[in-house]
Amino acid sequence: MSKKEETNEEIQEEHMEAIDDSGVSETEAEMTELENAQAELSEMEDKFLRARAEIANMSNRFKNERELLVRYRSQDLGKKLLPSIDNLERAMAIEVADEQGASLKKGISMVLESLQAALKEEGIEEIPTMGETFDPNLHQAVQTIPASEETPADTIVEVLQKGYKLHDRVLRASMVIVAQ
Amino acid sequence: MSKKEETNEEIQEEHMEAIDDSGVSETEAEMTELENAQAELSEMEDKFLRARAEIANMSNRFKNERELLVRYRSQDLGKKLLPSIDNLERAMAIEVADEQGASLKKGISMVLESLQAALKEEGIEEIPTMGETFDPNLHQAVQTIPASEETPADTIVEVLQKGYKLHDRVLRASMVIVAQ
Repeated sequence: MSKKEETNEEIQEEHMEAIDDSGVSETEAEMTELENAQAELSEMEDKFLRARAEIANMSNRFKNERELLVRYRSQDLGKKLLPSIDNLERAMAIEVADEQGASLKKGISMVLESLQAALKEEGIEEIPTMGETFDPNLHQAVQTIPASEETPADTIVEVLQKGYKLHDRVLRASMVIVAQ
Repeated sequence: MSKKEETNEEIQEEHMEAIDDSGVSETEAEMTELENAQAELSEMEDKFLRARAEIANMSNRFKNERELLVRYRSQDLGKKLLPSIDNLERAMAIEVADEQGASLKKGISMVLESLQAALKEEGIEEIPTMGETFDPNLHQAVQTIPASEETPADTIVEVLQKGYKLHDRVLRASMVIVAQ
């Protein structure tokens, strides 16, 4: 008998003793423990991978939300400035006779330009309207005139109040008269 | 997993195979396998807990960032409106003689009030200045006069340009003359 075989025999004997002592196979107990540990490991690995995926999702979601918050940050204040721009434009239409009046209008014109420039820098611009084809997403028809050869149906013939948009969002539709 | 860890695992696997081949105790090999699985489980648990902590951190960080973005969203546009407000206030000081002039000034006054209201809604307000004690965080001294009994040192005696703040942030310091 080789030495190797002897050693194996000894082990088998010990193994048999173990079974005699506890009544349950030690090897089986160890297998169960190992299988448990492996199952737990697999479960934990799964939890970790899901957490890592959640981190990637959150990161993307935040990035998008942050971009939207920055892109449309001036929506509220910009919208509130539109009536002021209307009023300044209306004031510019008043005829003046003296130097004080001219001085006031020069001031108004400067303020108007400055406000329009500030809005433009934030992405707020007038909606193209005159001569455009009527688009219910951008224009609000408050009156119609009969279509003619010069002004076919859906042509905008007059702008009653300018409309504005912030990038792709309409802040206020243009109020128009449209041929129909 | 780092390269070093991978290498270690490979070595451990090779080591285990070696034991199997050599006929060394199966129980010992299983113990090693169990110990390995337990070590891996412990490591994976650690990685999972760190990932969960990172999720909580990201969530808090983004909540704070979002609040700041909303709170100060009107900082840029608001700042650009200040020269317009200065100009409108300057225009209001012009004396007018006729009806057209009065009509223009009425329009300017309306626009001014509307702009100030819009800024206020976004958290932008004038920095209190006249009669206040000079504060280098809020006021910029462009000129000084000698302090007297009526105007002790650090009293603001004249405002050359109004200052504005957005919540706690100074958008533009007040330009003042201060007693010294």
